[in-house]
This record gives sequence, structure tokens and C-alpha cells, in this order.
Amino acid sequence: MPDSSIIAIDAMGGDTGPSVTVAAAINILKQRKDVKLILVGLTDQITAELSKHNSQTSDRLSIQHASEQVEMDESPALALRKKKDSSMRVAINLVHEAKAHAVVSAGNTGALMATAKFVLKTLPGIDRPAIMTTLPNMKGHTHMLDLGANVDSKAENLFQFAVMGSVTASAVDNVDNPKVGLLNVGSEAMKGNAQVKAAEPLLQNSNLNYIGFVEGDDIYNGSVDVVVCDGFVGNISLKSTEGVAKMIGQFMREEFSRNLFTKFIGLIALPVLTSFKKRVDHRRYNGASLLGLKETVIKSHGGADEYAFSRAIDVAILEVEKSVPKNIESQLGALLEKQPA
Amino acid sequence: MPDSSIIAIDAMGGDTGPSVTVAAAINILKQRKDVKLILVGLTDQITAELSKHNSQTSDRLSIQHASEQVEMDESPALALRKKKDSSMRVAINLVHEAKAHAVVSAGNTGALMATAKFVLKTLPGIDRPAIMTTLPNMKGHTHMLDLGANVDSKAENLFQFAVMGSVTASAVDNVDNPKVGLLNVGSEAMKGNAQVKAAEPLLQNSNLNYIGFVEGDDIYNGSVDVVVCDGFVGNISLKSTEGVAKMIGQFMREEFSRNLFTKFIGLIALPVLTSFKKRVDHRRYNGASLLGLKETVIKSHGGADEYAFSRAIDVAILEVEKSVPKNIESQLGALLEKQPA
Repeated sequence: MPDSSIIAIDAMGGDTGPSVTVAAAINILKQRKDVKLILVGLTDQITAELSKHNSQTSDRLSIQHASEQVEMDESPALALRKKKDSSMRVAINLVHEAKAHAVVSAGNTGALMATAKFVLKTLPGIDRPAIMTTLPNMKGHTHMLDLGANVDSKAENLFQFAVMGSVTASAVDNVDNPKVGLLNVGSEAMKGNAQVKAAEPLLQNSNLNYIGFVEGDDIYNGSVDVVVCDGFVGNISLKSTEGVAKMIGQFMREEFSRNLFTKFIGLIALPVLTSFKKRVDHRRYNGASLLGLKETVIKSHGGADEYAFSRAIDVAILEVEKSVPKNIESQLGALLEKQPA
Repeated sequence: MPDSSIIAIDAMGGDTGPSVTVAAAINILKQRKDVKLILVGLTDQITAELSKHNSQTSDRLSIQHASEQVEMDESPALALRKKKDSSMRVAINLVHEAKAHAVVSAGNTGALMATAKFVLKTLPGIDRPAIMTTLPNMKGHTHMLDLGANVDSKAENLFQFAVMGSVTASAVDNVDNPKVGLLNVGSEAMKGNAQVKAAEPLLQNSNLNYIGFVEGDDIYNGSVDVVVCDGFVGNISLKSTEGVAKMIGQFMREEFSRNLFTKFIGLIALPVLTSFKKRVDHRRYNGASLLGLKETVIKSHGGADEYAFSRAIDVAILEVEKSVPKNIESQLGALLEKQPA
């Protein structure tokens, strides 16, 4: 763990760019005295944004100029090839050059993954990096991966995801042997598609705390710490729950704004509704980890606001403090040795 | 459409058997004067249950004795081979013998699918029947299939699911050309796993109202009428949303029961909370259709209560009235002709 974590921030990434990223950076520096931040992007825009907050560069906050930016809908391959001076690329370079310990970006996910993989490289033993996020559950939180970096994953990929997820959960939650489950359509051994059936023996023969198959509802009931799945399945699971949560929220708003009487009730119930809203606030869980790379890379939601983006920076700081990539690397060897040839 | 729909009910199926199924049957007969029901199972138990409700058999309510029952965790293959006089099997036989128009069961899903497929057969052009359910969305409801009958579906299977879903949605909702979407991890053409990439051209070349790829959150935002996916993906999506909805419900209860003050607020807000609860009540959507069979087979949730099981019977009645299997059969030929060889 470094004396002071240095985080490179892609200041231009996301739907809103500097107006969110700069505000979040200022906010983090107030809370965390042991952290240094580098804002990467168009110096003019970043400086202007700092001024708005009566702030400026300091020994803990610097600006690294980058002349280009990756668009949200740009092809990852094109971004990688053509945008050598993008805020995203320059931020990742800072980590590669050991001028920063981690990078946080709210930019194009595909471009971030492709560029990070190209510049920082994957850890030995990892074929494909995966995206892991933290989700609330009834008792605390669950880690889940992959969420969309990989589709048509092979059994070996799912096994690597399990190792990366277990190591990361163990490090950031300070727990030994987190419970790892493989996402399936039933808990019986005969169930599942070819993918999970092939991955099952690899997990059973590992020294992970593998608890077997878990189902979609187990992600949220607190029975498992790390849920492993193919990126296609994980992305659809996550987006489905986002959709249903949004619908439930709308139904609730509609019911409370039906007429004057229900609006009045809503006013009375406001303290309870507010604390409820806080508990289900998905912004608290912003900041997905790109695992399997040699360094820490955190992806923020593109539409993150200041609070949400701050949370993504927090995730980066925590993973630097816990040396997550080094932990994965050192434990990967031992775990892979246990595998049958 | 028959003069009077006759529905065979597997009275022993589900977690609670006759105490739920018989009560639901009595309830339906009160509401629907044009419906006849046959309760299939242990005559003694069914009669006793009828007595509890001061009810008895009539020209609209008969009992068909069946001496066995399929257990919830029994192997479908074993149930099919060994339990020839199970309430499930006998109820399906009644449909095969044209003594009933449809069957409703809250029993073992795998056994119901296997037995229905064996006894009733699939429609010409259908390789694998699929399970479709109705889900609430922000504007009304969405139909989604497959929800777990098929894993590792081929492109042709997904196409057949799309046809069956479109025809059924059109019939039961009285809409022409319902919007059909293929569930994917992004709406861009390059995205997706091998399965959806292979299915995409089949759907594009059909005369379905195919709107392209949809994502997990689209299931609940009202932008699509029929969501098509592999059963592995569909089951995990559905279970994930069930899990998150349950968690949200628990958080809300916890917030309202935190202390005397919040409990008092909960009391005041009760009318609003009750009408909200009604809107998100999943029991309203109970009754999944096993599509692709020659007759109508409806699967109720195993844990359904009287209200939920009544809804499943309602689904059966509606599909009989709309001749769903015949509609699928007649439109399948025309749609399949449009397919490139």
C-alpha cells in the first residue's frame, strides 16, 4: 500500500464530463487527506470548472492535459487506434508510467476495457478481464462478475472470474474465503446450460469457498458473496433489475401523487420515504472494477452525478490500498495449480 | 371458441394442493358463468375441501379421480414413466381426450412440460415448447419467453419463440403486430453472443413486427410487447428481478417499522401503500403459458395462493377463448415460409 494513493481521473468521460468529475474530485480531496488526484483532459475546461468551485490545483490536485476525448458511442477499436491523446488514454498511461496507482473513467466501457488491456496488459493466467460490480442485498452486499465484458465465456473464463471475484471481495471486504456461487437456472446438479456445466467441476476442484449453483434471486438475498456468470447473462440480469427497480419507483411516485390527499400523505411520510430511497440508491454502488488487469481500473456509470462519481473514486482508492491486482496475481498461481490438467 | 370452456385442474399440484386449487376453482365458477372445471386428484381430499367451502360437484364442477401425484422435486423423466395415474397426467389426458380444453397445474414444471409434450405433442414446425409469462411494465405489460424450458437454444428456436410469442400476445391482447424484441446486452448491431447474432437475421427477414435488440431494462419500460430470449437468460432475468423486488419490499417494511413514529406514518400511509402494493403484486401475473404444444397448458407458480391460482385459471380460459394453439399453428406456416432457406 502506497503512502498516498494517486488516482488518475478521466475528467472528460461520461455524459457530463468536467462538471461532474471535477466536483467529485474536489469532494474526495476534502474527505481523504491521504489521496492525490490527477484530472486528465482539456486544461481550460478543467481549470474553469475548478474556478466555479473556488478551487485550484495544489500538491494534491494536478491537471494533466489531453487534447482529445473518446465519444460514448465510439468504436473501441477506433478509439484505441486513433485517439492516442484522449483523456482516457492519457489517464491510463499515467498508471502505466507509475505516475498514478489507478484510473477512474465514466467514459465508453468498451474503449476503456480495450485501451486498459492494451496499455496495462492482463495478469498472467487471465485470458479476459471481467467487469465486477457491488450490488446491495438484504444483509449487506454481493459482488457480481462478469457484467458484460465477455460473452460466450468458456468454462476456464468463468473459473478465472471466480478467482478474481473471490480475491477482490476478500480484500475489499476484509473477509476470508468469501462464498462464491455460479449463476444458474436451478440449484440441482443436472440443471444449467453447457457453459455452467463445464465450469462446475473447475470450481468444485478449486480451493475457493465454492457453494455451488445460485439462482437470480440469490444475488439479492444475502446467501452468497460473489456471483459468477458470463457477461451476457450478468449484463441482462443487472439491466433487468435496474428496469424493475425504476418501474417500482415510478409506481410509488404515481401512487403518492394521485390526488391532494395522497400528496399530503406523501409529505407526512417523507422522512421514511427519504431513508428508504437512500437505501436503494444505486449511486452508492457506482464504480465497477475491471479485474484481471495489471493495475486498478474503475468504470463509473456514464450518467453518474457528483455523488456517484465520488463513490467510484472511493472504490479506486480502496482497491489501491488493498493492492487488488497484486493480490489476484499472487493467489491466482496457487489456485490454478489446484486445477486438474 | 367453444360454447363453454372446460378447464382441467391438477388439484394436487403446487406446495399446498387442494386447499388452494379447490378454493380457486370455486372462486372462478362464481365469476365466470361460461366455464366448466374438472378437479383432478384424490377424490376424498377434493370432496373434503369442497365441503369446507360449503360447495359440491355440479354440472359445472366435476371431480376426476387420480391416485398419484408428482412431487415438486421429482425427476420429470421418472414422473413421466412411473406416475401414469398422477393428477397432472390425468388432467393432461383429459385435454388429449377432448374432455377438457386446457389444463392448469401448479406442479413440477419439468414434469408438466415433459408430460404435456409426450401426451399432447408439439405443433408442426416447433422443435421445443417454451414458457411464456406476462410481466408488468410502466405502461401495461410485456410478454417474455423462454423462461427456462430451453437452455442453449439455437437461432431457429429463438425464432420459433418469437413467432409463438407474437401470435399469443396478438390474440390475448387483441393487438395487431405486437412489437417483438430480441434480448441482448446492447442495441448496437455488433453486440451480443453467438446465439442472438445468429437469430437476428431470421427475425429481420420475418414478417413479424421485429423492433431489433432490446436490453434488460426494456422488459419493464413499456417499449416492447414480446421479449424473446434463451431459457437460461430468461430465467435468470426473471429470478433476478424477483430477488430485487423482494429486497426493495423488505427495505420498505424495515423503514416503516423502524420505531413508533415511522409505524404511525405507515398507518397513515396505508391506503397509498396498499394501492402501491396491489400494482406490484406479482400474483396478478401468475399463470405461465407452455407454448408450442397442440393444446393450452398453463403453469401456475408452485407457491400460488387462491388469488394467484385463480389468475392462472383465467389465463387458461383466455387462451382457450382465443384458440391460441390453433392460431400459432396457422400463422406459423405463413411466417416460416418467409424464412430464407
